[in-house]
This record gives sequence, structure tokens and C-alpha cells, in this order.
Amino acid sequence: MQTYQYPKSQALFQRAVQVIPCGIYGHFSPAPLIPATDYPFYTEKAKGARFWDVDGNEFVDYMCAYGPMVLGYNHPQVDAAAAAQVAAGNCFTGASPLMVELAECLVDMISGMDWAFFAKNGGDVTNYAVMAARDATCRKKIVMIKGGYHGVAPWMQAPGHHGLLDDDWRNIIRIDWNDAAAFERVIQEHPKDIAAFIATPYHVPAFSDSVMPAEGYWKKIETLCRENGIILISDDIRHGFRLDLKGSHHHFGFQPDLVCFCKAIANGYPISALMGTAAMKPMVSRIFYTGSYWFQSQPMAAALTTLQELKAVDGPEKMRVIGEKLGNGLVSAAARHGFDLRITGAPAMPYLRITDDESLMLHQDWCAECTKRGAYFTPHHNWFVSTAHTDEDIEKTLAIADEAFQVVRKKYNRL
Amino acid sequence: MQTYQYPKSQALFQRAVQVIPCGIYGHFSPAPLIPATDYPFYTEKAKGARFWDVDGNEFVDYMCAYGPMVLGYNHPQVDAAAAAQVAAGNCFTGASPLMVELAECLVDMISGMDWAFFAKNGGDVTNYAVMAARDATCRKKIVMIKGGYHGVAPWMQAPGHHGLLDDDWRNIIRIDWNDAAAFERVIQEHPKDIAAFIATPYHVPAFSDSVMPAEGYWKKIETLCRENGIILISDDIRHGFRLDLKGSHHHFGFQPDLVCFCKAIANGYPISALMGTAAMKPMVSRIFYTGSYWFQSQPMAAALTTLQELKAVDGPEKMRVIGEKLGNGLVSAAARHGFDLRITGAPAMPYLRITDDESLMLHQDWCAECTKRGAYFTPHHNWFVSTAHTDEDIEKTLAIADEAFQVVRKKYNRL
Repeated sequence: MQTYQYPKSQALFQRAVQVIPCGIYGHFSPAPLIPATDYPFYTEKAKGARFWDVDGNEFVDYMCAYGPMVLGYNHPQVDAAAAAQVAAGNCFTGASPLMVELAECLVDMISGMDWAFFAKNGGDVTNYAVMAARDATCRKKIVMIKGGYHGVAPWMQAPGHHGLLDDDWRNIIRIDWNDAAAFERVIQEHPKDIAAFIATPYHVPAFSDSVMPAEGYWKKIETLCRENGIILISDDIRHGFRLDLKGSHHHFGFQPDLVCFCKAIANGYPISALMGTAAMKPMVSRIFYTGSYWFQSQPMAAALTTLQELKAVDGPEKMRVIGEKLGNGLVSAAARHGFDLRITGAPAMPYLRITDDESLMLHQDWCAECTKRGAYFTPHHNWFVSTAHTDEDIEKTLAIADEAFQVVRKKYNRL
Repeated sequence: MQTYQYPKSQALFQRAVQVIPCGIYGHFSPAPLIPATDYPFYTEKAKGARFWDVDGNEFVDYMCAYGPMVLGYNHPQVDAAAAAQVAAGNCFTGASPLMVELAECLVDMISGMDWAFFAKNGGDVTNYAVMAARDATCRKKIVMIKGGYHGVAPWMQAPGHHGLLDDDWRNIIRIDWNDAAAFERVIQEHPKDIAAFIATPYHVPAFSDSVMPAEGYWKKIETLCRENGIILISDDIRHGFRLDLKGSHHHFGFQPDLVCFCKAIANGYPISALMGTAAMKPMVSRIFYTGSYWFQSQPMAAALTTLQELKAVDGPEKMRVIGEKLGNGLVSAAARHGFDLRITGAPAMPYLRITDDESLMLHQDWCAECTKRGAYFTPHHNWFVSTAHTDEDIEKTLAIADEAFQVVRKKYNRL
């Protein structure tokens, strides 16, 4: 196969570094992890599970905009609903009736949740959840998981990042994932001062394997929360609507007080949601929390159609099947070339790692070689699949992966 | 005139309170300030400076979605640019080339700013600015203005609100607006521990008059910042693009290190921007700051067209003229009925108050009576005008205001 070149992407990046910090930010920063020689930085258009960069190269996308794309790029029904709403109006002084319809739709769908509140970022609602838990309990401390990610507000970030103060973690306690005993100890050490426990439904740290909840873990956490008056927050921003349309807490059999959604909720239109139990409603109601665009109606129209479509096609089951086909194929391809490729997490959002590669360089190289042939793979973050990934996409991907394994096998003398 | 009824709005609100905290939130909460008997809560459609509620009532809007609407609702060019981008694709795994174009456009437009970074909420960028200031200075304290508003993150909110901890203000110092001497005192009290001064270009507190900067105020603040190594942050989220297309700091003649934009930047499509000087670029570059939808390309397309259109029509001048016509007309109408209506702030975003009304009830009633006749006025927040407000809109509004003055005059026995 011919490998892609990115002259236009690189030229744009050179313009970008003049006028944008880092040139490009977020998951693309620090840039060395995703080098501009191997990866396209700028996207021209997209359709289904594929996108085309500014150099005209075509990719099967396994990052799905880092989660938001769940039904395929430019999904006709979602985009039509969004466009129809914009034709009426988009961001009004008041709310649109769609806000009520969307809240009703979510309350109907999500297990055990009685209300919904809408914002823009995932971090808007994880932050709101924490404020609500503090207000509900009159306590300060928040227990979270080491390596857990809930957004970029200072308290959410891990020590070591820039722009943060020690004061930001004054009330944050981090424990290991799957360690219910650690949670018990923390409760004993801070009697009646733990406001909330917040975690993702299963653990998705960057740079290491995803870890499912141990048998009985969530039930134990739930019990400890109930017994000690602690608010249980499920951060379902990344997992939500990919594992279970009733919420990932339903999938894993626990009952949170608050659940955070974002990403897949509207197939790329910007909206997040905090949902909660009836008992939490008075507490969140008295908190002042708002944003300039939070009544914007276009993403609400998109969300209603996205949720409807996910139900209609049984999105989670479809993504499980596709994800398994992809994973099995990649593991086989790796094995044919003498590599042990380990896949963790749910098939709909797999984390991949070549185990016989301590430096991570071989795995990075393999991802880059795949990307340069049209299968967009990033090395140290979980991937996402969508309902739009077809058998043809998977076959193309597996052929690319096979060739890429051959390339790294030669490069690393694993012949 | 016939006054409006809101049966459908009220019925929707009754459904909403079942599934949404407060039923409706943000500026509409706590609800008593904007009673459902006087105000429409749900908007069906909008066009130009007008919107129609779910009961079919038509309003000339003076809140402009609380700022985002600046060129008129459903602006054909902005919506066409947004739709064209969505036809190519919206929220990609990578950025769109529009991100670079928009940063270049802003750097070209805004006085003294060398780069731009994009997020969603205004609060995303005020928060980022504060993190950058702390990282740049290795200091903790942030000086802000009593009654200033920079978003809803805990440190931004004023003590007294729910969901907050005393710890949230550990490093926040609030001083009075226009009191440069207070800033000097604070600098002396906390030598080398002030990271930033953040304020809006002029003061827009809720429930009281807007206050312009005193003669020499901003120059004095700027000098104190320079002399003491303090980062100067202009929060131009509310004022930006309504006073001066080079930034409100240009309008008032000062030079900040960082400027925050949002609201009017894309005529209702959700995007915010932090801009800064070259000296600040390395500091912001090393901070990890990102969000699920921050590469979304539709709002970037909308922003490019919005800024172009604002230039083409000289938006700030157009809004100044319209705002003065509105203000002068309202003051005259008030005087004819024996009321002293005081207008403060820029004509493009006036704050109104009937001075002979200590309880604020008469002013609230007057706003409600205007709204019930089709001029959407809220009582305790500055209003916004847009380039889409026509002479016909103003004439209709002044006729409504006249009749509403007559109604409250009778009701309060001011005959």
C-alpha cells in the first residue's frame, strides 16, 4: 500500500503555531505523541465512519471525534433534525420546547434517574455534580480514582499539570480503582466529611489498560455510599450510550445518585447532561449554574434524534459486534506476525497495547503505520467504534493492520 | 393593546418542573423574578430582532439570547456558512482548517493580541486565563471586582450561593469597581502574591446601574499590573464586539495580557475564545486544557462570517445608534408619565432603572407590562441590542413602553 503524505496539514500547522498556543491542543498536545509526519492534523470532511484530511487522504476513524460521533459522521436524520431546528431558530433568549422533550426522553431512558439538566462540556456537569453533592451533604471531600478523568477544571486535573495550585486538591482524595477497602479506609479517616464518590463505570486511564469493575465492586461502593450518606456520581461521559442505553450503571448493576452524560448524546452537537434522583433535585435546584449557550436548541434536536436512532438500531449491541470483529481480527493479525496485542475495555471502546513493547515505541509506530495507510489509530487512549462502521471498514482496517505489523516487525528486527 | 397570554408556555413549564431542576434555569431562575404569568418561557422560532413564543405571541427581543445574538436571529449568511460546514462535517477527531482561519482573523482584528484558543463557555476561558496567570507568575491570588461576573465555576461565584466552599475563595480577593487605590492596597498587603487582575471593560452588576471606568482608571490598573508583574485579564465576554471590533480594551484605551470572548462572537453558535499576547503564549501552551466539542467546526464557520458581517455593517456603530434611539425614546416616554428612567452602560447594552421606585416592584411591573405587549424587557440585567433592530422595531417598542407606563402609573397611583 502507498503511505499517505500530509503537506497541506503540515503547512496549516505551521500557520497555526503562529496564532494558536501549541498550534493544536487537547488530545493532540503535546504534539510529539501524534507527530505531524504520521498523522493528519486537519480534517476537510467526513461521512459515516470515514473522514478525509485536507490532503485528500481517506481514513477509517477509530477515535470518533474522541467519543461524540456514535452514529457516523453526517448522519442524515440527526443533521436533518438539527437543520430543521436552526431554520426555526437556534440560541434564543428563552428555552425551546425541545429542552423539556429531551429531559422527558432521558428520564424515560436512563435507569433510576428522575430529572436532567443541560450544559455544554462534560466538565460542566461533573463540576455541577460535585457542587450538588457538597450542598446536599454539607461536606467537603470528594473521593475520585487515581488516573480518572472528569474534565479540565483544576480540581479534576492530576497534580503535576501546569496552571494548578495545591489548594485545588485540598478537598480531593484519590484512591485506586477497584479498591473498595481503600474507600472504607478513607471514610473512616474522614468521618462525615466525604461528600461524594465519583468514577467512570469502568476505569479508562490514558497510557494503560482499561480495567473492568471487579466482581461486587460497584455494589460495595454503592453500599458504602448509602451507609455513610455519600453521594454516588457516575461519570458516564465517555461510556454513556455505547454500553447500555439505560446508562452504564444499569449495565454494571448499580444505582448512582447523579449521572453525567456528554459526547455520544448528540452525535457531535455540543451538549452535556447531568441526571439525578428525585432526592437530589432540590439540592441542584438551589445552585446557580448557567452558561451563555446552554439553552441552544440545535444540539437538543440532535440529541433527541440521536437517542431515538440509537434505540432503533440497538446501538450498543451493534457497536459490541463491530468492536469484537475488529478486536478479534487485530489480535489474529498481531499473532500472525508474532506480536501479543492486548485489548481491554468494552468492544465498543477498546484500549489496545502490544505487550512485548516496554518502551511503547513499537506500539506507537504500529498505530502510525496504520494511520498512514488509512486506519486512524491513536496509541495511548481508548478507541471508539460507532454504529456506522461496516464490515467493509473492518476488512479494510485489518488489511492495513496486517501490513503495518509487517513494517514494524522489520523495523524492530522481530523477524 | 391586547396583552399576551401564555397557556402553552405555562403547560410546558408544568411538564418541565417534573423533569428539570427548577423547571428552567439560568437567568430564569429563581423563577419569581420572571413570573410565568408575565413572561413567555418557551420560544418556538425567531427572525431578526423578533421571536415568537409557543403561544404564537410575537416579541421584539432586547435580551438577544443574553448576548449571543448580535446580527439578528437566523442571520442568512451566518446560518448558511454554518450549514455549509455541517454538510462537510461538524465535530471531527481532528481540527478543521477553520480553526486556523478563525485564529488568524481574530489576531488580525483584536488590538494587541497575538494568538487565540477556542472553547465553548465563557467560563472555560476566564478559568483558563486564571490558570495561565498563575502558571506565568507562580503566584496564587486573583483580584476581581465585587459584583463582577465571570461564569459559574465556584471561584467565580460570590459567597452566599449554594454548592460552594469557603476554600473556593481562598485565593480570590474582591475589590470595588473603579477603586484603583484599593488595588494598590491589595498589592501591598500581598506582596508578590497577586497573579492576576480580572474585570469586565466596564462594570455590569446585576440589580444595579452599569458603571463606566472612571477617567484614568484602566491606565492606572494597567500601570499597577506592569509594575508588579500582575497579569491583566479583560473579560470581554459580554461587551465584546458590541462596543469595538478591536476589543473593548481598545475602546477604553488599555492593553491587557489576556482577553476573553464569547457570546456575540458567532451569533449564537457555541464558541468562546481566549486571546493573549506573545509573552503569554508559552504559559498557556503548557497547560492541559481541552473539551469534547472544542474542535467542533460549525461554530468556527459561524464565527468567521459573524465577524466579517460585523465589520461590513460597522456593527458597534449601528448598535450605538439604535441603542441611543431606544434609550432616548424610553426616557422621554417615562418623563411624559412623570417617571425618571435612568439608563447606564453603553447604548448597545443599556441597563435601565426607574429611579423613583425603591422596592424595584414598579420597574419590574413596567418591564412585565411591556413584555406582555410584545417588547421583551427583563428588569434587573442589562439589555442587549443587535444590528437587526430596525426603526420599526424601536417605534413599536416605544408605543408599547408608553402604554405600559400608563398602566403602572395607574396601578401605583402616580396620576
